[in-house]
Parts: sequence; structure tokens; C-alpha cells
Amino acid sequence: MTGPPEAESVTLDLLKKKMAEFAKERNWEQFHSPRNLLLALVGEVGELSEIFQWKGEVPKGLPGWKEEEKVHLGEELSDVLLYLVQLSDICGIDLGKAALRKVELNAIKYPVSKQQSQNTNNNTLYNGNDGTESG
Amino acid sequence: MTGPPEAESVTLDLLKKKMAEFAKERNWEQFHSPRNLLLALVGEVGELSEIFQWKGEVPKGLPGWKEEEKVHLGEELSDVLLYLVQLSDICGIDLGKAALRKVELNAIKYPVSKQQSQNTNNNTLYNGNDGTESG
Amino acid sequence: MTGPPEAESVTLDLLKKKMAEFAKERNWEQFHSPRNLLLALVGEVGELSEIFQWKGEVPKGLPGWKEEEKVHLGEELSDVLLYLVQLSDICGIDLGKAALRKVELNAIKYPVSKQQSQNTNNNTLYNGNDGTESG
Amino acid sequence: MTGPPEAESVTLDLLKKKMAEFAKERNWEQFHSPRNLLLALVGEVGELSEIFQWKGEVPKGLPGWKEEEKVHLGEELSDVLLYLVQLSDICGIDLGKAALRKVELNAIKYPVSKQQSQNTNNNTLYNGNDGTESG
Repeated sequence: MTGPPEAESVTLDLLKKKMAEFAKERNWEQFHSPRNLLLALVGEVGELSEIFQWKGEVPKGLPGWKEEEKVHLGEELSDVLLYLVQLSDICGIDLGKAALRKVELNAIKYPVSKQQSQNTNNNTLYNGNDGTESG
Repeated sequence: MTGPPEAESVTLDLLKKKMAEFAKERNWEQFHSPRNLLLALVGEVGELSEIFQWKGEVPKGLPGWKEEEKVHLGEELSDVLLYLVQLSDICGIDLGKAALRKVELNAIKYPVSKQQSQNTNNNTLYNGNDGTESG
Repeated sequence: MTGPPEAESVTLDLLKKKMAEFAKERNWEQFHSPRNLLLALVGEVGELSEIFQWKGEVPKGLPGWKEEEKVHLGEELSDVLLYLVQLSDICGIDLGKAALRKVELNAIKYPVSKQQSQNTNNNTLYNGNDGTESG
Repeated sequence: MTGPPEAESVTLDLLKKKMAEFAKERNWEQFHSPRNLLLALVGEVGELSEIFQWKGEVPKGLPGWKEEEKVHLGEELSDVLLYLVQLSDICGIDLGKAALRKVELNAIKYPVSKQQSQNTNNNTLYNGNDGTESG
């Protein structure tokens, strides 16, 4: 007898399989072209942004947010993730593998020692990067 | 002796830990407020969109794309994912748990039998939904 | 006696003034920081994308769209524009002036004769640009 | 003898005509389908977001920004505008007319007296709206 999967063990592969099955059961595969899924993802990023749009700066951990707001935020973050997983799947990209590789590329692009000294001396330097890192 | 993690076993939790460590090592935690990370995510969604912007409709599996284009796509998909993981972490949201819950909510919102008959009778019906599902 | 402004004479300056007055009358200026307006714009771009997300490729002129769909589209395009005008205003950017200048820069970056021959010989070349032009 | 158009008299119609001519001269009309232009717009919104992504809250008027940063910002705001104008044109939407109508609809949806008293009593109320206004 097995219970639900532990949250901390949720793999991208599991989500991919669940979403593929979900679409197949509903005959929605016909709608899941790459650009359809991409625009759906953009739509969800818009909904995610709306949660933050009038709030001014928001501290880490969201102090003062109501529980229902946090639940809503979790749903919008999930919507973005689920479309991202489906888009990757439909494009034939192994998202987990690609993400691990990208972390390694970022580590080469932004070596630890260099970043630390830059930040110590000039903490606005980070603003000047090209916006493509994920660190 | 252990090798690198298998791609199919990549968990959201692993990526969260890797990104938290990455930021800590570079003293970048100071920049990782929720809205900073959200705007960085929007930036990456823009870069993802640029890959598809002049292509017209793109078939599943990306036939005819060069290997380098697919690698680039994998990097942009990863950038979106990595910022999404970090944004969730900084907001105190368990993204894996939230995503599993959202899949279940979607299954309730869009029951299998109902969707199938709707699609059979009227395949434009899907267009009329509120755009919030992830299926 | 004057009627409403002619649609073809709608200036960015007119929209800027209308939106500034609109915000002032409602005491909403307090919410209109640059990043609040930017995230609101992203939200509207999401709503715009949702209109197109399940449609597959859409021909010019939107043949077959219902009148109500076109009206809805006009509203979402307008929402993006109105936030863009407000964001520019709050940042002290003259959007009309900047746009005219950008058209001129684009004309220098993409000279007519060069683009024409490239497109004649190889119509995929445009895909290879850096995605920053607006032509 | 006439000089360049005054910035304050820049109409949406002028930009539409300039962009249509720009595309025609370069034989780029073939690339300007609605969804291509929409994804290009999303790409530019991403570049606009990158300008603000690591800055934390930014005050009105952008005090402390370098002149070159403001010029760059003007270019990205313009890129979004120019694609928005082209997308509207290709869809057969009169953007100026639609924007004026949307301002009027917003004025009905958010009457002055009601909003003022709400903001006086509870300035978080604005956060609870549906995110669709443009005021």
C-alpha cells in the first residue's frame, strides 16, 4: 500500500507523465502545439504577476499575506510550472537534464570567487549583467 | 561512489537546494526578493518567446530544428524553471506539493468524461475556457 | 462645439494626460510606482496572450472571429497600451519621441536594400536576427 | 517647410503607417502574422523587465539612473509599443479608438467618488480588484 508521493520527491518526470496522461484522457493533445502551450504559459505568468502588481516591494517569506493569498500564489506558480513541463515535453526537451546542465553552465559563467569580491566592492555590479543567468 | 543524478530523477527539491546554494556562495541572496525574481522570470519568458517568434506554427518535436537551436531552447526553458524554483522558495511555497495539488484540482475542474464529449461535439469549446487550467 | 476626438488623431500625449487625470481623480497615484505598473503591464500581456493561446496560427485580419472576440481583443490591446503609457510617464520618458527615434534607429540597423536581397535569397534569415528590432 | 513631427503630436496612426511602410520596404510582411507579432511583443516585454529586474523598488522619475539607462529604457518601451501597434494593425483593430473607449469603460467601472472613499478608508482595497483596469 502506497500513499501519495512525498512533496520533496516530486520529479519533473512525474509531472510530465501526469500532464501527458491528463491531456490524453481529455483528448486535449490536439491543442498542445508548442506555440499554443507557450502562449498559455505567458498567460499564466501574467496571472502570477497580477498577484504582485500593486504590492510594492514584497519581503521574503511574504509576511502579512493571508493564507488564501499564499494558496493562490502556489496555484499560479504551479500553472506556470505545468505548462513549462508540457512545453518541454512536446518539444522533446528533457527539462530536468537541461536544468542540471544549465546550473553547471551558470557556475562556469559566474565563478564563486569573482562574484564574491565584486559584490563586496560594488553591490550594484550585478545590475550590469546581461540578465541571462539564473543564479 | 555515486555518479551525477539521473535526469529522470531530478526533483524540484534538488533544484531548489542547488539554486539556494548557488546564490549563497555568490552573496546574491541580497538581490533575491520576490519581485526581483519575478521580473527576472518574465525576462526569461521573453527570451523563450524570442526563439519561437518568427517561426509561424511549429510542429511537435520540432522537426527541422538544428541541434544548436534545441540546445538553446533547453537553456531558456531551464532559465524559466530555475527562476520559478527560486521565486517559490523565497516565497515559502513548496512548488512540488503545490503542483501535485493543482493537478488534482484541474482533474476535478475538468472531469474526463465531460471534456471528451465536449471535444467530440465541439472542438472549439476548449477556447472558451477561462485560460486558467493547465491541462 | 466639439465632438469626441477622431480616432486617427489619438496621440500618445492625449492618452498620457487622460490616464494621469484618471489616476489623480481616484487617488491611485500612490500605487503607480514603475515596478507596480510594469507588473500590471505584464498581467495585461498575459490576458492578451490568453486570447490567442488555443487558436493555432491566426491569419491576418482575424477571419472567422466573432465581433465580441474582436472587441475583447481591442480591450486587451488597449490595456497593454494604457499601462505602457503610464509606465513611460511615471519614468519621465516621452514615449512618442522615443518611438519615433526607435523607428529611425531600426531603419539604420536594417537598411532596405540589404534586407530585401536577403529575404529574396533566404527567407529564413530573418529568424536569425537578435530579436530586438521592431520592424 | 515642415520639420519633424513634434513629439507631443505623435499619433498611433502615424506609428502604424510608419511601421507598415517599414515592413513593406523590407519585405517583412510575410513574417507579420498575429501570433508572430504577439510573441515578438512578449520578447520585448521581457527585455523591458530585465531593465528593472535587480533594482528593487524604483522611485518615480528614476532618480539616480544614468542617462544611458534612461535612453535604453525608452528604446525598450518603444519596442513594446511598436509591436503593439503592428499587432493591432494586422488584426484590424483601431488601437487609438479602442484605447479611448477603454478609458471610458474604466471610468464607468471605477467611478471617482466610490474609489476615493475606498482608498481613504482602506488603501489595500485596490489590491483586491480583478487586475483588469488600466487606471
